[in-house]
Amino acid sequence: MITYSTCRNVEETQKKASILIEALPYIRQYNGKRVVIKVGGELIEHEDQARNLAEDLVFLKSVGIQVVLCHGGGPQISRAMKTLGKDPMFVNGQRVTDAETLEVTLMVLLGLLNQQLVAKLNRHGPQAVGLSGVDGQMLLVKQRSPELGFVGDIVNVSPTPIERLLADGYIPVIASIGIDDTGQAYNVNADIAAAQIARQIGAEKLILLTNVEGLYESFGDKGSLISSIELNDLEAMQDSSSLSAGMIPKVEAILLAMRGGVQKAHILDGRVTHAVLLEIFTPEGIGTMIMPG
Amino acid sequence: MITYSTCRNVEETQKKASILIEALPYIRQYNGKRVVIKVGGELIEHEDQARNLAEDLVFLKSVGIQVVLCHGGGPQISRAMKTLGKDPMFVNGQRVTDAETLEVTLMVLLGLLNQQLVAKLNRHGPQAVGLSGVDGQMLLVKQRSPELGFVGDIVNVSPTPIERLLADGYIPVIASIGIDDTGQAYNVNADIAAAQIARQIGAEKLILLTNVEGLYESFGDKGSLISSIELNDLEAMQDSSSLSAGMIPKVEAILLAMRGGVQKAHILDGRVTHAVLLEIFTPEGIGTMIMPG
Amino acid sequence: MITYSTCRNVEETQKKASILIEALPYIRQYNGKRVVIKVGGELIEHEDQARNLAEDLVFLKSVGIQVVLCHGGGPQISRAMKTLGKDPMFVNGQRVTDAETLEVTLMVLLGLLNQQLVAKLNRHGPQAVGLSGVDGQMLLVKQRSPELGFVGDIVNVSPTPIERLLADGYIPVIASIGIDDTGQAYNVNADIAAAQIARQIGAEKLILLTNVEGLYESFGDKGSLISSIELNDLEAMQDSSSLSAGMIPKVEAILLAMRGGVQKAHILDGRVTHAVLLEIFTPEGIGTMIMPG
Amino acid sequence: MITYSTCRNVEETQKKASILIEALPYIRQYNGKRVVIKVGGELIEHEDQARNLAEDLVFLKSVGIQVVLCHGGGPQISRAMKTLGKDPMFVNGQRVTDAETLEVTLMVLLGLLNQQLVAKLNRHGPQAVGLSGVDGQMLLVKQRSPELGFVGDIVNVSPTPIERLLADGYIPVIASIGIDDTGQAYNVNADIAAAQIARQIGAEKLILLTNVEGLYESFGDKGSLISSIELNDLEAMQDSSSLSAGMIPKVEAILLAMRGGVQKAHILDGRVTHAVLLEIFTPEGIGTMIMPG
Amino acid sequence: MITYSTCRNVEETQKKASILIEALPYIRQYNGKRVVIKVGGELIEHEDQARNLAEDLVFLKSVGIQVVLCHGGGPQISRAMKTLGKDPMFVNGQRVTDAETLEVTLMVLLGLLNQQLVAKLNRHGPQAVGLSGVDGQMLLVKQRSPELGFVGDIVNVSPTPIERLLADGYIPVIASIGIDDTGQAYNVNADIAAAQIARQIGAEKLILLTNVEGLYESFGDKGSLISSIELNDLEAMQDSSSLSAGMIPKVEAILLAMRGGVQKAHILDGRVTHAVLLEIFTPEGIGTMIMPG
Amino acid sequence: MITYSTCRNVEETQKKASILIEALPYIRQYNGKRVVIKVGGELIEHEDQARNLAEDLVFLKSVGIQVVLCHGGGPQISRAMKTLGKDPMFVNGQRVTDAETLEVTLMVLLGLLNQQLVAKLNRHGPQAVGLSGVDGQMLLVKQRSPELGFVGDIVNVSPTPIERLLADGYIPVIASIGIDDTGQAYNVNADIAAAQIARQIGAEKLILLTNVEGLYESFGDKGSLISSIELNDLEAMQDSSSLSAGMIPKVEAILLAMRGGVQKAHILDGRVTHAVLLEIFTPEGIGTMIMPG
Repeated sequence: MITYSTCRNVEETQKKASILIEALPYIRQYNGKRVVIKVGGELIEHEDQARNLAEDLVFLKSVGIQVVLCHGGGPQISRAMKTLGKDPMFVNGQRVTDAETLEVTLMVLLGLLNQQLVAKLNRHGPQAVGLSGVDGQMLLVKQRSPELGFVGDIVNVSPTPIERLLADGYIPVIASIGIDDTGQAYNVNADIAAAQIARQIGAEKLILLTNVEGLYESFGDKGSLISSIELNDLEAMQDSSSLSAGMIPKVEAILLAMRGGVQKAHILDGRVTHAVLLEIFTPEGIGTMIMPG
Repeated sequence: MITYSTCRNVEETQKKASILIEALPYIRQYNGKRVVIKVGGELIEHEDQARNLAEDLVFLKSVGIQVVLCHGGGPQISRAMKTLGKDPMFVNGQRVTDAETLEVTLMVLLGLLNQQLVAKLNRHGPQAVGLSGVDGQMLLVKQRSPELGFVGDIVNVSPTPIERLLADGYIPVIASIGIDDTGQAYNVNADIAAAQIARQIGAEKLILLTNVEGLYESFGDKGSLISSIELNDLEAMQDSSSLSAGMIPKVEAILLAMRGGVQKAHILDGRVTHAVLLEIFTPEGIGTMIMPG
Repeated sequence: MITYSTCRNVEETQKKASILIEALPYIRQYNGKRVVIKVGGELIEHEDQARNLAEDLVFLKSVGIQVVLCHGGGPQISRAMKTLGKDPMFVNGQRVTDAETLEVTLMVLLGLLNQQLVAKLNRHGPQAVGLSGVDGQMLLVKQRSPELGFVGDIVNVSPTPIERLLADGYIPVIASIGIDDTGQAYNVNADIAAAQIARQIGAEKLILLTNVEGLYESFGDKGSLISSIELNDLEAMQDSSSLSAGMIPKVEAILLAMRGGVQKAHILDGRVTHAVLLEIFTPEGIGTMIMPG
Repeated sequence: MITYSTCRNVEETQKKASILIEALPYIRQYNGKRVVIKVGGELIEHEDQARNLAEDLVFLKSVGIQVVLCHGGGPQISRAMKTLGKDPMFVNGQRVTDAETLEVTLMVLLGLLNQQLVAKLNRHGPQAVGLSGVDGQMLLVKQRSPELGFVGDIVNVSPTPIERLLADGYIPVIASIGIDDTGQAYNVNADIAAAQIARQIGAEKLILLTNVEGLYESFGDKGSLISSIELNDLEAMQDSSSLSAGMIPKVEAILLAMRGGVQKAHILDGRVTHAVLLEIFTPEGIGTMIMPG
Repeated sequence: MITYSTCRNVEETQKKASILIEALPYIRQYNGKRVVIKVGGELIEHEDQARNLAEDLVFLKSVGIQVVLCHGGGPQISRAMKTLGKDPMFVNGQRVTDAETLEVTLMVLLGLLNQQLVAKLNRHGPQAVGLSGVDGQMLLVKQRSPELGFVGDIVNVSPTPIERLLADGYIPVIASIGIDDTGQAYNVNADIAAAQIARQIGAEKLILLTNVEGLYESFGDKGSLISSIELNDLEAMQDSSSLSAGMIPKVEAILLAMRGGVQKAHILDGRVTHAVLLEIFTPEGIGTMIMPG
Repeated sequence: MITYSTCRNVEETQKKASILIEALPYIRQYNGKRVVIKVGGELIEHEDQARNLAEDLVFLKSVGIQVVLCHGGGPQISRAMKTLGKDPMFVNGQRVTDAETLEVTLMVLLGLLNQQLVAKLNRHGPQAVGLSGVDGQMLLVKQRSPELGFVGDIVNVSPTPIERLLADGYIPVIASIGIDDTGQAYNVNADIAAAQIARQIGAEKLILLTNVEGLYESFGDKGSLISSIELNDLEAMQDSSSLSAGMIPKVEAILLAMRGGVQKAHILDGRVTHAVLLEIFTPEGIGTMIMPG
């Protein structure tokens, strides 16, 4: 069988080639490096955002980047609690996780969200494996305080299962659940879990995907959206209490990761289509980048 | 510091030594071999049975046996459905899994049972990692029939994650959930999943832990409890429809596994303390053993 | 230091992301595969074409493709001969390579062209290593006929140095020189050398870069430019003598490669900027593709 | 073929399981660790003691412990000397090893005892390989004094053959013969050889099997049998000269091993059936244990 | 410090270089190959012959040949028997090995000869490790006939210890003792043991060192010394009963080895200084070579 | 087929064996070690000297020495320049390399000399692979001074390709061409290149083959030929300006290599047949040896 060349739009095609070539230095820079991405529950319940994120992760893996995805699921847990007619409780502004809340948390995070993220990635072939901090005692925790119930602070990270899955070419998808040395599960903060994992596995980059445009110097002032900031300036912002409530754990996670050797961190707007690709493979970048210094 | 020998009960101690030596041929026989164990939901909700099972698995691993644990969770799923005010439906005697039932199944199996089994094993250190057939597309399924909803039949097993976890010294704990090539999760029969995994990873032995004493030649006749049976006799029983309803999928799973190269299969009473240890490491054995022939 | 976000051209940037995502299936398809590219001397003397080719090869390598570059240097050799006041001789239409011609050939291919190609690739870091068929007895030849002098036909390919350089992440750049078992160097056809190497190392694809647009069904009829053709149709064209003189060794090389297991072959216009990238990573493709069948 | 369950003594069987489970922490503790065991000639000439010892060693190996067995053969050498009508000679209380005595020593240790121990272990399959310090220059010695003849003190241990045999799953059985740099064989003390090997290969435990119940604080006072003692107390005993003649080299060997990093040492009564198993796998223990401190 | 060139005997020195170069093709031919050498007891009791043999073996190892040395010890055993006042017994011309004879055999072979050969090789550094067929069940035997006592025929060779020692750069030195599956030692013919080992480890060459000049076509006719002979001619000689008594087991061993894949065999006069080096590294060769055909 | 032993010259043959044995300690000493040899252009144009050198290198490789050959080609470049009617230019006594000179240098070194050396070695099988400092950016240089044109000083050595070829059993043959970070080729001094490579790959020995007998204490005084000299004495000679012009870069190279960890260096007369073999494998040695001290 023979087909003949019809007129081809060479100009359009060559523009494509030049965009690929433009990505070349970034591809080479991150080849063989590790990137930990944390996505919040508010993003992954939008079908197309989750699908775009899955495509981005598969692209990263295809050009030789080792990717770990961490996730929480706050909105989904709250909704499930309401369905069961249970109101959230708070002590000093912190959510209390009693036994029933923990059970709902485990069912929502492990049974629904983790499984759905893994399944979406696995549409592209055997790409991902789901885990939580319970598996292989990966996230060993101790209770924060008896009043808060099953809320845990990470005291040790055992990254062996992550290391092996990365070596085998899988994307580990990790739900933010910890375990104590008696085998009891605990709820842990997903931003902090991502940061702890990032420093433990020697990640080059930590990306926090959220549903705001980035970090604002003055919370509420659209014009103060920060494009890039050095670590010491971020520390100053933390001390000055100018951070919005939602940003506090994210900034804490970023400081934790970068003091532990992670080179760069990003707060990106996960609602932007292919936000991760744009940040890593184009010179423009998006959101807020935190650099050493 | 010096302590002195008080009178020791040497006779008692030596009896212990002789029991260890009695186990020696079995330890040597199974060293480096693989054993797949399936446990039903009815057993793992008894705290002490689950704890004993965890001890048995850790013992197997400690003497060099590579263990995979598969589980379902029928009673727990049914109970959760009732709590939500939803009645099970049946078509031609087979349970229908609609979207809501699937969601409950995923939450119970992954969020509660799998996580609890892994946590119990991890009391002994980093021993186990939980997985389902969604992870790494391990259990690829197709829908059995539209009427039954999200009930899947396994069409392919991709054992890479199991192989790596075994190589790293972990016990993979696998919930009986499958995935199709669009990324949709499905309920799969846990006995069959265990059998498919056993043949795919070249297991030496498949053990089905249940809450009856074993296989009866005449269902209801206590005196007809079978101690050992050859494969062809089991096939004859299958054809003669003399099996109880609960035994039908178990016998099917055993035939599937042994035709695929698994050397021996066992139906054991999981309510007996340390049933697995007794079967593997003592000359007496318990339950029903199926041998080639 | 803090910088603030100026207005970003998000639309333009997202178009870039979509082009990267468009390349994803091709990147995944060729990841870990091998591609042999042959470039003619007429292309590599244009500085910008050589630079673009180098960028394309580095891109291929960066996304996990193992690339081998083969080259000849006909025009450069002829020019060097003329400078030395020596006229080419022909026997039955085939160029005669006497001792002096061979010496010029070796100096031009190894001293100038091979070294320049390697140097251009090495602008991007330690990317390439130059070789010829003399190294490690890679291309073992016998003399075609005494009348033609030092013109050799390949009788064996020893790919060990190529294999090791690929394993170490280098791009082997191979000049089309062979060696016989007495240690005498010979001139060999570069298209055929590329084909022999491609089949020996299990390449997925053979790309012949030339200075025409592709293969024409009727030589001289611009409208007959073939976009894709199956192997048996190409064999028919070879038998019908409808090929231009320049295409004869290229078609012979392609048949040799594809009968030896290479999956696809391409005749591309090397004058098109980033021709190799366009062919591999866009759905449009360029030039003529030869498929099995 | 079908067999039916006769009444089983479930209670008795479950007691067995609980003894296995009792051994679990010890199995896990010593898995992958190394244990050096020294057995005296007086024990291995009792057929059943040698057989029990072989079973114990095979058990240790089967649960993942790397075992090295060292042996001497004093009584057997003395008896062979007498048969040949030759009387032992002593200088300052130390036995003189002239050329003829050395020849008898080599024949008895290598030809009879080492070979018999290896053969007994190999009844259980290919378990053991016999060596002496002559092999691979493993125990390099220098002469202690010309008056004592061929009595050597170890100056270097080259453990490569031991390491490789352990890695291959063999039990090295080592006769206490050394070699000097001219290739001359020497008699060496077996307790000291075991200690030197233990520290060189990073053993966790050194066990000296002897024909007394253990170490007595007051030699001759049955009530002063020591169950456990810390290293500094043992050093005090050595200085106070309260040790029996037979215990002096054993205590010296233990101090040498534990100062070199061996964690624990034991003096056990090898006449007790399965003494090694009892010590390692039951909480009761037997004999005298020396702990750091 | 400076020294000045005195007159050097360049001619003499260059002759040395040309002899090394003459050995080059043989060094390259046998590099990485395996050679099994069997030496009889009559040779190794001459101090200088043993020392020369040791030098030859170390040379072979140094140029990359993997060497295994097998030995018997007939004369030494007989002499030891006589010393003990015990006469050899024969049944149908075959020597009877009763329990006492076996004990003497083990003591002489393992305690004296094996140890001395290893020690001589280890004068050159850690070169050799001694083994017998008892170690690792290497030579599994069954009794030839009850009348002959502990005389065994090899039924299986387990070469793992040999393979590992070769891989680690040691020369295994193997005494011709076998073991049955009850752990009983047996005397085995050393020529046959060498042949069985040679075929099992894929040796290129089997060399039998003896104290005659080679194989004579007519026993007793000095002029009929065979330089080279093809396998089928050797088989003809075996059938025609023209072999001397001493040659019968050697010819049997050679046929066994070469039918099992060994490429060449040699019967060499071990009394010639450096006989092995001469055979392997000079074009002249010595003794009788058996070639395929 | 049977052949019979004619009279052999045993005495002559045994002398050969004793010369091999004499080489044994040297073979063992250098086994697994690395030797870098630099040969000047004046030697390799003599057909028989080049052939002898090739034999020597193949011998070294055959006895387990890892050999790297470096070469320049001064006389051949000068002659080619003259043929093209171009005169060499000098600035302050240093040769100027303009663009045309560089082109001739590349053609002569890579196209002719490197290729011929590789081809000669490959007569003995696939022994050698040719490289230059351009390959894999092996010799990264910067320009010495603008006046001298394309003359480079080595600022970094990237030995990966050398390491891999050595590991695969090849002899790397390296032309003294460097590359700067823009991809421009430069001429580099071959003695210095050999020294830099030697220290970078941890060579034991650097051998400079030249066409004089060695180093003279008083240039011109035949009686002052140095046999051996310590490093500090050589430094004194360098300071005292008593070196001939040709020796200056060689002495500089030797000091560079030995200060970088190379154990010994040699200046040998490459016109002596098998000079390298004589130096390494006979006790006499030739030329001048530089020792630490």
